[in-house]
This record gives sequence, structure tokens and C-alpha cells, in this order.
Amino acid sequence: MTICVTTIDRSAGTLANSLAELGVATVHEAQGRKGLLDAGLRPIYRPASIAGTAVTCEVAPGDNWMIHVAVEQCQQGDVLVVTPTSLCHDGYFGDLLATSLQSRGVRGLIINAGVRDIATLTEMKFPVWSAAVCAQGTVKETIANVNTTIVCAGQTIVPGDLVVADDDGVVVVRKEEAIAVLDKARQRVANEEDKRVRFEAGELGLDIYNMRERLAEKGLRWIESED
Amino acid sequence: MTICVTTIDRSAGTLANSLAELGVATVHEAQGRKGLLDAGLRPIYRPASIAGTAVTCEVAPGDNWMIHVAVEQCQQGDVLVVTPTSLCHDGYFGDLLATSLQSRGVRGLIINAGVRDIATLTEMKFPVWSAAVCAQGTVKETIANVNTTIVCAGQTIVPGDLVVADDDGVVVVRKEEAIAVLDKARQRVANEEDKRVRFEAGELGLDIYNMRERLAEKGLRWIESED
Amino acid sequence: MTICVTTIDRSAGTLANSLAELGVATVHEAQGRKGLLDAGLRPIYRPASIAGTAVTCEVAPGDNWMIHVAVEQCQQGDVLVVTPTSLCHDGYFGDLLATSLQSRGVRGLIINAGVRDIATLTEMKFPVWSAAVCAQGTVKETIANVNTTIVCAGQTIVPGDLVVADDDGVVVVRKEEAIAVLDKARQRVANEEDKRVRFEAGELGLDIYNMRERLAEKGLRWIESED
Amino acid sequence: MTICVTTIDRSAGTLANSLAELGVATVHEAQGRKGLLDAGLRPIYRPASIAGTAVTCEVAPGDNWMIHVAVEQCQQGDVLVVTPTSLCHDGYFGDLLATSLQSRGVRGLIINAGVRDIATLTEMKFPVWSAAVCAQGTVKETIANVNTTIVCAGQTIVPGDLVVADDDGVVVVRKEEAIAVLDKARQRVANEEDKRVRFEAGELGLDIYNMRERLAEKGLRWIESED
Amino acid sequence: MTICVTTIDRSAGTLANSLAELGVATVHEAQGRKGLLDAGLRPIYRPASIAGTAVTCEVAPGDNWMIHVAVEQCQQGDVLVVTPTSLCHDGYFGDLLATSLQSRGVRGLIINAGVRDIATLTEMKFPVWSAAVCAQGTVKETIANVNTTIVCAGQTIVPGDLVVADDDGVVVVRKEEAIAVLDKARQRVANEEDKRVRFEAGELGLDIYNMRERLAEKGLRWIESED
Amino acid sequence: MTICVTTIDRSAGTLANSLAELGVATVHEAQGRKGLLDAGLRPIYRPASIAGTAVTCEVAPGDNWMIHVAVEQCQQGDVLVVTPTSLCHDGYFGDLLATSLQSRGVRGLIINAGVRDIATLTEMKFPVWSAAVCAQGTVKETIANVNTTIVCAGQTIVPGDLVVADDDGVVVVRKEEAIAVLDKARQRVANEEDKRVRFEAGELGLDIYNMRERLAEKGLRWIESED
Repeated sequence: MTICVTTIDRSAGTLANSLAELGVATVHEAQGRKGLLDAGLRPIYRPASIAGTAVTCEVAPGDNWMIHVAVEQCQQGDVLVVTPTSLCHDGYFGDLLATSLQSRGVRGLIINAGVRDIATLTEMKFPVWSAAVCAQGTVKETIANVNTTIVCAGQTIVPGDLVVADDDGVVVVRKEEAIAVLDKARQRVANEEDKRVRFEAGELGLDIYNMRERLAEKGLRWIESED
Repeated sequence: MTICVTTIDRSAGTLANSLAELGVATVHEAQGRKGLLDAGLRPIYRPASIAGTAVTCEVAPGDNWMIHVAVEQCQQGDVLVVTPTSLCHDGYFGDLLATSLQSRGVRGLIINAGVRDIATLTEMKFPVWSAAVCAQGTVKETIANVNTTIVCAGQTIVPGDLVVADDDGVVVVRKEEAIAVLDKARQRVANEEDKRVRFEAGELGLDIYNMRERLAEKGLRWIESED
Repeated sequence: MTICVTTIDRSAGTLANSLAELGVATVHEAQGRKGLLDAGLRPIYRPASIAGTAVTCEVAPGDNWMIHVAVEQCQQGDVLVVTPTSLCHDGYFGDLLATSLQSRGVRGLIINAGVRDIATLTEMKFPVWSAAVCAQGTVKETIANVNTTIVCAGQTIVPGDLVVADDDGVVVVRKEEAIAVLDKARQRVANEEDKRVRFEAGELGLDIYNMRERLAEKGLRWIESED
Repeated sequence: MTICVTTIDRSAGTLANSLAELGVATVHEAQGRKGLLDAGLRPIYRPASIAGTAVTCEVAPGDNWMIHVAVEQCQQGDVLVVTPTSLCHDGYFGDLLATSLQSRGVRGLIINAGVRDIATLTEMKFPVWSAAVCAQGTVKETIANVNTTIVCAGQTIVPGDLVVADDDGVVVVRKEEAIAVLDKARQRVANEEDKRVRFEAGELGLDIYNMRERLAEKGLRWIESED
Repeated sequence: MTICVTTIDRSAGTLANSLAELGVATVHEAQGRKGLLDAGLRPIYRPASIAGTAVTCEVAPGDNWMIHVAVEQCQQGDVLVVTPTSLCHDGYFGDLLATSLQSRGVRGLIINAGVRDIATLTEMKFPVWSAAVCAQGTVKETIANVNTTIVCAGQTIVPGDLVVADDDGVVVVRKEEAIAVLDKARQRVANEEDKRVRFEAGELGLDIYNMRERLAEKGLRWIESED
Repeated sequence: MTICVTTIDRSAGTLANSLAELGVATVHEAQGRKGLLDAGLRPIYRPASIAGTAVTCEVAPGDNWMIHVAVEQCQQGDVLVVTPTSLCHDGYFGDLLATSLQSRGVRGLIINAGVRDIATLTEMKFPVWSAAVCAQGTVKETIANVNTTIVCAGQTIVPGDLVVADDDGVVVVRKEEAIAVLDKARQRVANEEDKRVRFEAGELGLDIYNMRERLAEKGLRWIESED
């Protein structure tokens, strides 16, 4: 059965802005290096940085019909996440759909396929992370699921999970883990600020992290010349 | 026999500026979703938007000799379209050739290969859509055809056809179809403007396009939760 | 044995600024079209243009430990060149390591792998040429060599060699050939300036380079129409 | 926390042989075209055809340590499914590990990374579907999860799910859906046999599936010549 | 308008067997190194070698409906050539369609997309050159053209042209050029046989082709050692 | 200056047969996991296994002239290693050149580019490892170096070095390290044989290599179920 689920748990949505500020690399580290979408998803303009609750959408190859169904499920603070059911780089999404999403307060689009009208999307400041840019349009013939659990660019996305995206890529945070991840990410940033000051002052990572002894134990030898 | 054809039919050239304004995605839709070059061709800077009459040029792998032959065939309002006879990402084209083309009023270059000097090309505002950026130069040893019908990045290009290129990619319009395509593209834009206003007002594509009944007929079910 | 070599010959370093001004394409031509790294290495922001003496660093897949070892070997005017021992697109390098390198006067990073924190790196104006952008972090478990001769992106890099990088890519110049290359590159630029003036004036490459006769000898025929 | 789960539900294992006989394409169709792993996974020899219960294993890039942990969890009738935590084509698996798995009655390996010793694996008749063949070995430094739910080559794999693999690729069948899928797949095959006889007799799909009228309704026109 | 053209010129079909025997590389050389389809099209089994008259077929992404329409246009001695209107690796074609084509005397399939059931296709000895193997099936919703001029894998294919395919790839020969190409190809083979005898006897290409003087003129120097 | 070096040090050639028997993966491990060529080089038929002394050859893109020069430098027991000066997948090598090499006792070809006539090469049992199969031929216009140190598929190859190639890929062994590598490789094989017996008997790698304690120290926990 093909379904569109109309009620999803957005309880973690209040944490989105804080995660967006921390950034993808920090959030990814803080949750134990999991949840990163394939690095082939790139922002259509830079810099760009968002976070929000995932509304998920499957699409058939060359067919963007279900994006229209998904738009109705989107609310203020959401991020639309779209995955094709097989590899396709067509331009599934353009400025009209972006206008529709922007009017609903949606923060951006993550799509493991192509988009078009990127000059207009850039002017509108509607951020998109996509696998391709392609002017090739799509048809509206085949249905698929909206707001079910999907795999997008190598990661499982459950509707209502938090999606964080910036110039470094896209990461998903499980809604039930979001508080703990946020906490760890903040610790990490605080710790990094301290490190940054020391690095700026010229201190070495070898000393800051006490690496010299362990390197020597592993067998590294410092020598003056190779000959 | 290897030839350079010196007379081509540029009669559709007067429509180029109008097509450029409409953009690649709109023109591609208006002509029934045909004529789009492979999405691997990307602009070296953005935004960029041009249209013009195609002068075509084949080149041997690692050999840009024929581009010099093609330059002489270029006139005000042309776009030079270059295709290698086998896969090659070398930098066939740089700032000197761009200077030569710009002095003749050529609007840009489409090349299914590599280019170089892109910092200078960007400063010169000479737009290029290429398959790669590569500093590797080329030799001048092998001849090939100029202004014959070629296949470039998956599409047939007849000399004198209109080539439209922008941030979304590159599309070719047959010269004999250009008036009809322009007409349909304008209708499409007018129609889209109306839609955009409705989308901005928060109306849904589901309603604007009357999709709900057909979706249900295809078997889509809206449910509150997956469980 | 795994080693970190602590003394390298930076005698060619005084030529770096001159080579940077000439640019990658010119330098590559001037040294007989050799030394170009794979075109898959792209700058994280544009325009960017550097040259400096190479400090080399191998890293295991998913492991950036040795970059910390390499930082200590870096001096004012160096460029750090990192190659993984097998294909890996993880984000080996971010803003903290960049801060450390910048504090030592290092001019940039060349890495045949991924980097992250690119929004911050862009703000810091620390230029990087990488094979990917990826938020996936790395571990610190495996040692490898620093300042030995490596192959990075298809080219041999000897520590102390000059590395030149700009929007067109990255080229390596052997330290012992640097003076000769600089000399030839300057001749080439002088020669190009003269050509540029002639191209701007509308003169054709066919005439500037006397190509017509040789083209005809090879068999090229100019004809009015293909039919 | 990093874990190795020691008890998994293999209740669907009795259906494996039947699914293997039906083949990947048929099973994939029968379950509504879902569950197919990325087509980049290819068998190291052909023909090959297996099905079994999934034991899952994550590995760090360039590190095959956890495969040894996973082997202990494998039983007669299992298929080992391995996914790297980031893109890596190293040779994680060779003839010794295959000997170990074969001694336990494991039916094959699915790995979204590289393998080696493929001449020996082919002689041993131990089938492997991998993303690459690569002699580059791996280290044993980093732990990761065994028998947790993973994403491998774009699909979610729950331990104990059925994995079916043949020359066409790899598909996963949820253990709780396996009976229904098997039933539909058998109907499909029965139906196909009937069709095959008609096709062999020269009957057309256009007639077997009554397509002519619907094609005409969509606008297809049969004409003698394009001119 | 979307059309299926029912009458094509197969007058060159009598030359197909002779071209198949000569092979793709020889035919490609004989016609001046033109007409080669992208090297990404590979045979599903080897060795395989065919030639025949092209019946052409466009398909929408993820939609194989038009292949059924094309089958009806196929006759004894034809080769079916299928191109998707945008990039798609789905399995458009399997053993039932192969049975249908085989019953009509069709010699093989060329498709710039995916196929499935390749174990059965191999047993049936129905040769296929495809861009991918993929078990992902397709729908039947969208119409496209049959027996119009198409671009497939970078080459223009006119219905009735000769298509030659073997382990080296696929080449198209214009029907009106086929006699001349066959003639040149035979000369080439005769010439090669003579060369082969001389190579077998240990004679060098340098001498057979009189290359030494020209190499020296270009500047090649033979030296005993590099130092 | 472009040169062909006529005298190379083949003193390690006597070790080639022994290395070939040990295989690429074992040799690669034995020399500390270095020297492996890019995994994109694949054999045109399987199984295939050779080793020999390297004769090196650069070629311009689309130009195989220098292979003829290199043939003359080849002797009994050599392996010809060819690298293009920029990316090119053309078919540089076919059955005539293979006949010439075979008549001189050359054991095979390694080429980071394309080859053709692979059906004939397979019949002749002339093994080739290439980056592509492509019927596109080449010209003979541009000179390049023979028997100089090159980078091929990511590795430095010095003329006279040993090249070992089999179904797993291609590895280079420095001539001066060959005896030590052979010695270590033999130890490794002996050691592996012992392991194989234990694996066949059902013993686990966890126990054979004493991994349990170290895994627990790193933090791995064995648990019955994830919930």
C-alpha cells in the first residue's frame, strides 16, 4: 500500500536552531560519527546553513508527483527530504515548488537527485542540497510514499528526525537522541574554542593532545634525512 | 574528407535574446523536454545566461588546433560548441582564445572537455560551460571538422541551431522550431507567473493542479500514522 | 620503517611568489606539460592562488593522525601536501588544523581526500585544494611517513619541491628545475601579452600562428556548404 | 556504545532457498520494487545465486577488524553483510576469512567495499558481491557495531532479514514480509511462464498486455515515415 | 507529436554479417574513426559479436513501455537500440522481452541504461550491450518515439543504419556509407594480415611503418641511460 | 628533451616468477602495503597472473606512437607499462601490437588507458590490465619518453622494477627491495597456510589472533539483544 502519513512527531524541532549553529561536522562528531548523508549531496549556493524537522518523500525516477503531496505535510520549521526509488538526476524541483515551500516556512530541501532554476532559488535564498543540477523536468504519473521511514543518500531518515545541513554536507539526528547530541556538541565546541586559542598561539597538536609518546610507541621515527 | 563549412544558416539568431531571458529549463519544457545536453556540462562561474547561434567544432583528444579554425567562422551573436572525438578532459581553451572570440562578439563557449585560465575568463566575463577545469594544455597536430553536424554531450547540434545556456545547463533548439518553441515558452512563463502568485499565497499544487482525485485513484492513502 | 624527515631542502622557496603570479597553466606549459596533479583536486573557494615549498604527508584511510606530525615540520612559506594510502573522501582537515598551519605561515593545503569546515576555512582565507568536501571525521590510530617522496593525485612530490595552485588546479615544479621553469614561464607570458593585443584587435590565431598552409597540407578543405 | 549483538531472529531462514531460486529481479518485483541494494555491488564471478539470513557488520575505513567479530556470530545459512562507515574500496576480505565463513556454512558475502584474493574465492566457490576488487589490505584498530541495523548500499538491513543475491544484484526481504513476498513471487513466476510461451510463439507484448488502446489514448501515432 | 514509424529502409542489412566478422575496431577505423558509441556500453557476456539494422526506441526514465511498441517494428536481422530520455540505470529489459525479440529473429539489444535477468539472457545466448546491470524494474506510463533518429551513448542512430557490436564496444555505420566502409574494412584486414605475419616474425612496427626518421625529426633521442 | 632510454637494470628479473606465484595481495602486504596501482586497472580476462621487469612508456592523449618505440626496448620477461600524459580512454593497443610483444617474450601489458581487440587478445592469451576497453583508435603524431621513471595509476614505476599483476590488481616492487619482499612474502604465505588449516577446522580469527581482550579494552560489548 502506498501511503501519505499526516501526523509526525516534531517534538525535537525546538532544538533545530541550536544544532544549525553548531554545524554539521560538530554535530556528526558529537553523535559518534553516524548519520552523515553521502558527500555527493552539495549545496546549490554557499554559504548555507539550516536545520529542521524532516518531512520525507519518495519519488519514482523522472517523476516528481509526490513532492506536491509532501508539500501539504510541511510546516514551519520543516526540511523536506526527497529520495528517488532508483538513481535519477532529473530536475525534480524548481522555483515554483520552492515558492510553495517557502510560503509554508520550510527551511530547505535535501534531495538525492537533481534540481533546476538554481539561479532563482539562489536569489530567493531557498537553500537546497542536491546530487545534481539538471534542467530535465519530470512527469506526474507514479505514486510513492510520503512521511514513511526512507533511506536517503545512505542514511535512514525517520519523519520528524532533525536534519542539519551546511557547506560541509547533511547529517540526520534521531529525534530521541537530539538533546544528548546537542549537549555533547556544545561541550565539543567549548573544548574546541580553548584549542583554537592554543593553536593560534602556535602550540602544536602533538603537544596539546600529548601524541608524541604514542607515536613513538607505534614505531614512528624522526630522522634528519632519508638517506 | 575533413571540412570546414564557411556558410551556415543563422536565420534564427534574432530569437536568441528572447530565449536567453526565458532560461534553459523553460525552453526545454516548451520544446517537449528534448535537446538538453548532459548535466555534466557546468558553467565556470555563476550566474551566467546566454543564447546564440551554434558554430560547431570537433577536436581530437588533447588537440585544440581546430578551435583556431572555428574562431574564423564565428560572428557576432554566435556560441562556439566544441566536442572531442573521444573522452578528454584537457584544457582546450584559455584566455587568449576567449579574447579572440570576445573580439568577434561571440557570446560564450560550450565544450564537452576541459578549459583553463578560469580566473581570467571569469574576470573577462566570458561564459563557458565545460565538462572539466584542467590546466593540461593541448597540441596542434590533428585536423577535424568545423561547422558540420556534431553530437555534443549527448545532443545533436546542427550549425546555426540556437544554443541556450544558464546555471541549469545547456539546451539546443533547432533553428526551424525556434519560433514555435519561443511561443510555447512564453505561454509557459505567463502561466507560471499566475501559479507563482497562488503558491506565494499559500495555495497548494494539489489544489492548483487538481491532483487529489487522481492520486486517490492511483491508490494513494492518507493515514494519520504508519502503525 | 615509518619516518618523519625533519630537514628538507627549501632552497627553491624564494621563487614561489613569482611562480604563483604566473599561474598553474603557464607554469605547466613552461616545464613541458609535466607535473600537473589530477584535475579532480579543486579549490574550496575561488579565486585562490598560492605557491610554496612542499611538506609531504601520507595518511591511512580514515585517519588524520600524521597531519599533526606534519604540522610541526611546516614553516613560513610551505604548502602541506597530503595523500591517503588508499582512496578515502573523509574530512581529514578542518578549521583547527588550518588555524595551526596559518599560525606557522603555511600558505595552503593540497589533499587528495576530503576536508570539512569549509565555510570557516573560506572566512579564514586558508586555501585548500581537495578531492572532496565531507563532514566525516577521522581517527588517530595508524602512523605513516612525513616528508618522504610521495605520489599525490598522480604526481611525484619530493619534499621541498615547489607546488603552485590556483583556480585551474595544482602543479609541482622540481626544486632543481625551478629557475629554468620560471624563466621559460616569464618568456611565455611576455609572448602571450603580445598575442593578446593582436587577438583583441581581431587578428586570428590562424594568421598569428601561420596555420593555414599546414592545415591545408593535412587535408582540411574549406567549403561553402556540406551538401 | 559499540556493541556486538549475539542473538538474532533467523525465523525466516527456512524461506531462503525458495527465494534464491526465484531470483533477485522476481523477488524485487514481488515486494513492490523495494529493497534493492545499489547496482554498484557486483558478483566477483558469474553465475552466482544465494539467499540467507543477514548477519550485519560495520567497519571503519581501511579497517576490517570487526569482520572477525562478525564471523563468530555467523551460522549455517547466513549471509554476511558488511558496510564501511565511510566510502572505502580497500580489500577488506580475502581467502582466509572466506575459509572461516565457509567452515561455518555461511553462503556468501555482501560488502559495499573492496575484496581481494578473488581468484581463490572463485576456485573455492565462495560467492561475493562487492563494490570493488582491490589488493589493498586493512588494519585492525577501530571497533564498530555487529548485528545492529545498518544501511548497506542504500538499503536498511536488519539482522535476520533475508538477503537474496544473483547476477542481477542484491535485494533484502524483511523477515516479517518474507512469506508474503515468496507467495507473490511464485505467482509472478507462474504468470511469467505462461507469458514466455506466448512470447516464444511470436505473440506481442502489445497484445498480451492489451496496450494498444491505452498507447493511442496517451497520444502515440503510428505513421509510415517521418517525412 | 509522439510517433512510431513503421517503415524503415533496411537496404544495407545484407552487409551486416560481413561487418560483424570484421569487428568493431576495424569497422570504426575503416570509416575514419567515427560512429563509436560511448565505451560505457559493455556486453553482458563475452565473447559476443553481432551486426544488424537498427530499430530505435526512446524510453522515459524508469519506464520501458515503448520497448513493447518497438518489438512490433523489429524483423529478422534487426538490432534494437534503446536510449532513455534522461540518465537512468534501471533494468528496462529482461528475459521475457528477450524471448519476444529472439522469436522475431532480432540479433541483440543496445541500451544506454540497465538490464536484468542476465543469467537467463546469457543462457539464451541473447547478446546485450548495456550501461548497467540492475534488477530495478520499470513502469509503463509514458510514451516516447520509436524509429525516429536518436542519440544513443553519444552517437546519432538513424533507423535502418547498421549497428556492429562485439567485445570492444558498439559502432554505427550509416546505411548509405556501408558499402564503402565494408570495402575499406576488408582492405584494412588484408593489410593487417600481412602485418601480423611480419610482427609474428619479430619485425618491429618502427621498421614496418618506417617511423625512425620521423621520430628523430620530432626530437626523440635514444640514449643509453638517463644520468 | 624527449628520450628513449635503451639500457635498463633488469637484475631483479630472476625473482619475477616467484613473485607471480605469491600473488599481488601477498606481495603488497609483504612490502608494507605500498606500491599498489589504482584499483581501476582490471584484467581483460580472468584468471590471469604475471610478473616481470617494467619497460615504461608515456603516451600523449589519443596517440600511441611511443608504444612502437617501447616495443623495441622490450625483452623476454618484461612487462610493458604505459601511462597517458592526460586522462584518455582510447584503445591504444590491439592484437597487432600484442603479436609484436608476444614474439619478443613480453609477459603482458599494464596501461592506464583503453585497449581493443580484447576477444583476440583473450584467444592469444596475452594478458592486459587496463583502465578501459574502447575501440577508438589513436594517431601517431606526438613523441614522449620511453624507459624513464613514470607515475602510472598512482604509483611511481622505475624501468626495471618488478611488476606483479593478477585478478586482484597490479603492484610494483622496487628492484632493490625485491629480494627482501620475496622473503617476507614467503614467510607470510607459510604463516597463512597454518592459519588456513585452523580456519578450515572452524577455529575463529578472534582466537587465532587473540583479539578478544583488546576488543573489550577498546570498548566493544557483546550483548544478547539491542533492546
